[in-house]
Amino acid sequence: MGEEKSYHMTPEEFRRCGKELIDWIADYHQWIEWLPVMSRAKPGQVRASLPNSAPEEGESFEAMLVDVEKIVVPGITHWQSPNFFAYFPSNNSFPSILGDLLSSGLGVQGMLWATSPACTEIETQVLDWLVEMLALPEKFKSTRAGGGVIQDTASSSSLCALLAGRERATEFGSNERGCDGRLTAYTSSQAHSSIEKAAKIAGIGRANLRLIETDEQFAMRPHALSAAIEGDRRQGRVPCFVCATIGTTSSNAIDPLRQIGEICRKEGIWLHVDAAMSGTAALCPELRWIHDGVELADSYCFNPHKWMFTNFDCDCFYVADRAALIQTLSVLPEYLRNKATESGAVTDYRDWHIPLGRRFRALKLWFVIRHYGVHGLRHHVQRHVTMAQQFAAWVKADANFELAAPVPLNLVCFRHRAGDSVNQAILDRVNQSGEMFLTHTRLGDRLTLRLCVGQTKTELRHVERAWRQIREAVPARNQPAASGG
Amino acid sequence: MGEEKSYHMTPEEFRRCGKELIDWIADYHQWIEWLPVMSRAKPGQVRASLPNSAPEEGESFEAMLVDVEKIVVPGITHWQSPNFFAYFPSNNSFPSILGDLLSSGLGVQGMLWATSPACTEIETQVLDWLVEMLALPEKFKSTRAGGGVIQDTASSSSLCALLAGRERATEFGSNERGCDGRLTAYTSSQAHSSIEKAAKIAGIGRANLRLIETDEQFAMRPHALSAAIEGDRRQGRVPCFVCATIGTTSSNAIDPLRQIGEICRKEGIWLHVDAAMSGTAALCPELRWIHDGVELADSYCFNPHKWMFTNFDCDCFYVADRAALIQTLSVLPEYLRNKATESGAVTDYRDWHIPLGRRFRALKLWFVIRHYGVHGLRHHVQRHVTMAQQFAAWVKADANFELAAPVPLNLVCFRHRAGDSVNQAILDRVNQSGEMFLTHTRLGDRLTLRLCVGQTKTELRHVERAWRQIREAVPARNQPAASGG
Repeated sequence: MGEEKSYHMTPEEFRRCGKELIDWIADYHQWIEWLPVMSRAKPGQVRASLPNSAPEEGESFEAMLVDVEKIVVPGITHWQSPNFFAYFPSNNSFPSILGDLLSSGLGVQGMLWATSPACTEIETQVLDWLVEMLALPEKFKSTRAGGGVIQDTASSSSLCALLAGRERATEFGSNERGCDGRLTAYTSSQAHSSIEKAAKIAGIGRANLRLIETDEQFAMRPHALSAAIEGDRRQGRVPCFVCATIGTTSSNAIDPLRQIGEICRKEGIWLHVDAAMSGTAALCPELRWIHDGVELADSYCFNPHKWMFTNFDCDCFYVADRAALIQTLSVLPEYLRNKATESGAVTDYRDWHIPLGRRFRALKLWFVIRHYGVHGLRHHVQRHVTMAQQFAAWVKADANFELAAPVPLNLVCFRHRAGDSVNQAILDRVNQSGEMFLTHTRLGDRLTLRLCVGQTKTELRHVERAWRQIREAVPARNQPAASGG
Repeated sequence: MGEEKSYHMTPEEFRRCGKELIDWIADYHQWIEWLPVMSRAKPGQVRASLPNSAPEEGESFEAMLVDVEKIVVPGITHWQSPNFFAYFPSNNSFPSILGDLLSSGLGVQGMLWATSPACTEIETQVLDWLVEMLALPEKFKSTRAGGGVIQDTASSSSLCALLAGRERATEFGSNERGCDGRLTAYTSSQAHSSIEKAAKIAGIGRANLRLIETDEQFAMRPHALSAAIEGDRRQGRVPCFVCATIGTTSSNAIDPLRQIGEICRKEGIWLHVDAAMSGTAALCPELRWIHDGVELADSYCFNPHKWMFTNFDCDCFYVADRAALIQTLSVLPEYLRNKATESGAVTDYRDWHIPLGRRFRALKLWFVIRHYGVHGLRHHVQRHVTMAQQFAAWVKADANFELAAPVPLNLVCFRHRAGDSVNQAILDRVNQSGEMFLTHTRLGDRLTLRLCVGQTKTELRHVERAWRQIREAVPARNQPAASGG
């Protein structure tokens, strides 16, 4: 049409390549079950198959897709495999992939309401929906003094919560004059490493983060928390932040929120609740006990990108007092000034998190909730919990194995009774088999295996097979004697 | 096939809906030019068209797509329109959309090398490619003591750089004991607001961030920087961080890197270079002067998600001494321990940024670079710069308008000579027309219009039309008298 060589992919090529890629992804999800779950790539292997320099001239999409099959697929661990039981899940779903595709295609920036009103308003509305879906306190709704925002990860949410707590405790003086070395923060010794990272980033310091001891179920001891706070106050310290965990990463321990919340209320300390994976369980009325006392929290987060079929990144972060958060994070340069912001009638989400720019992440969450409906989501969470409980029952019934922690939801911590080296051997063997993927932790200083059920396509047959393989992976000398052997 | 009702979208439905969505996106990009660029949605309008609660039962993809057309499209500002000249661009491209789609489809977590080796190694390799592509110093390569990582935004990169500088200056004592109120940081009065945000987050405090004065071209005055550092040292303060900007947001001013770098070397202060949009210009050898002195920097970032056809989020952050960054941000809990990490032979990118989890963002960047090749990318950057220079020439040639700042690259700051109210009227009129979108800033305390050329599909005809519309938007009383009128 008279245009000079543009180097762009034409819309026609995009239609063709895009449809090819959609089929490729559908195929991938259909054969993922038979791929070795954990990547067998050696350090440096992937890099060695890439050129040393960028190509001077463009390449075809077909060439890239060949490399995806030859280099990428063998180089990744298949997080979406139904045989993936490691870490926490990071599940996705077809509707989420489509919502994310739409976000990429629209390519809007939602840093301010004014830069794309729908990007802000759909997010606000869907996060209000989730308050009802999880039966969270009304105060977290945007229609009250609170509100929700999508962050990349729970790490970032915890940092923002810590910052808001820091500012509230210092009357916004830390923002102005910097920290003065007197601030202290509190979480359990089982809390996620991101709390320590946040304490460092925020200028509070690792040594001023008190790792409160836990009980025999790995949950925070509230008396130890009050003692630590009192001790610090006596020494002239300024306690500013407590993080309680609903479902610790190691063992899914549930901190006693109500008691912790009462302490924080009495002391006037910001209470953040990290429910990264486990919050999703509250979709099910029978599991809402995990949140007992959450109405005492100042902030809360959970990750639909873990256990709610929504692509990473999608962490939902709620505050009861949005003004405190905004006052903590807002900076308004001239080039971002606009009438809508000045009217006060809109939300500018850039003031709710670290980055300025933001992607239209609400689309994928909106698509997931609309596709599954509340019933569909609840169905799958119940299914996962039931399967994990079934697995725990098998462990309990086997004299050679034991549960290492309570199993409130979908994570089973267990071990062979013969000790660390046997458990390490089991772990190595099942993971190297490629047929499943487990990870470990240490509980009571003993090596403990973790099996977390949360992948979108995990069925009972996968969990049954996992249990069979785990038992078969026990070294021969530790196998129960065969009857009559 | 004997399965119970699953609520999942089947692979067959995904193939059908996915292909429909690919066509929808291709159509959108084909008609985007004729959509009103800035959304006309009123505050609350989008929310009012959404239900108050999530659906109990799932809905069809078709119902969602109807809402995308009815609610989303009128509710967004079309950042990908060739008539978008506001802020900085946030351009994308079809190959990037496909790379991002693949990332969503694979759904891997790249927090550790071990959790998906290809996710780490492709990123490392492509970031090394970019060092060569932009002729950045070799020290930023992973094969030396440095290395690059993809962050979400330049805001986050600046924060990480500030933290590493803070830790280096305090021998990692701030991480341990918290900040003590003595640290100071430096940037120009024209620097991005994210530097102030970072100083607050890091516990340094807004009052301890020195906003160094700028010259008549809005670039930092190096003498003022040394004077501020000396003054602070005399008062027992601990200068820890300087941020220089290559292409300020307001006016694209280029700080004198070499002089600033020499000061930082002498003083032993961490120098970060924020080249968020403008760094991309260095693809072109004739524009590499913008980076003169960058070999003196400790860290550097630029955003392919601004001006290099790569979907948000994709900020490339480089450090010369990766050990300093990793020591600043690393926390290693038991549940993340693995043999590869302990071997020291791999990179774990979770220690290079705030979040723990990370998406496979390198795919879109890899696809973009491979699709366009270095030549194709350079072609488009040169094209954008040429168009902006052409626009600047028109402004200069018009007696009623003036340039408000130098035009080194693709951003033109200009204004009508008749003063703020006329410029405001022009801005309001062109933006309300829907036919283009500009934003403003203040320079020398005068309202200034900004026209930034950087959208993927912007052609000369769009820039010509913008100039015509701007002149036509001048209020009648300020129009030049028609000859013979």
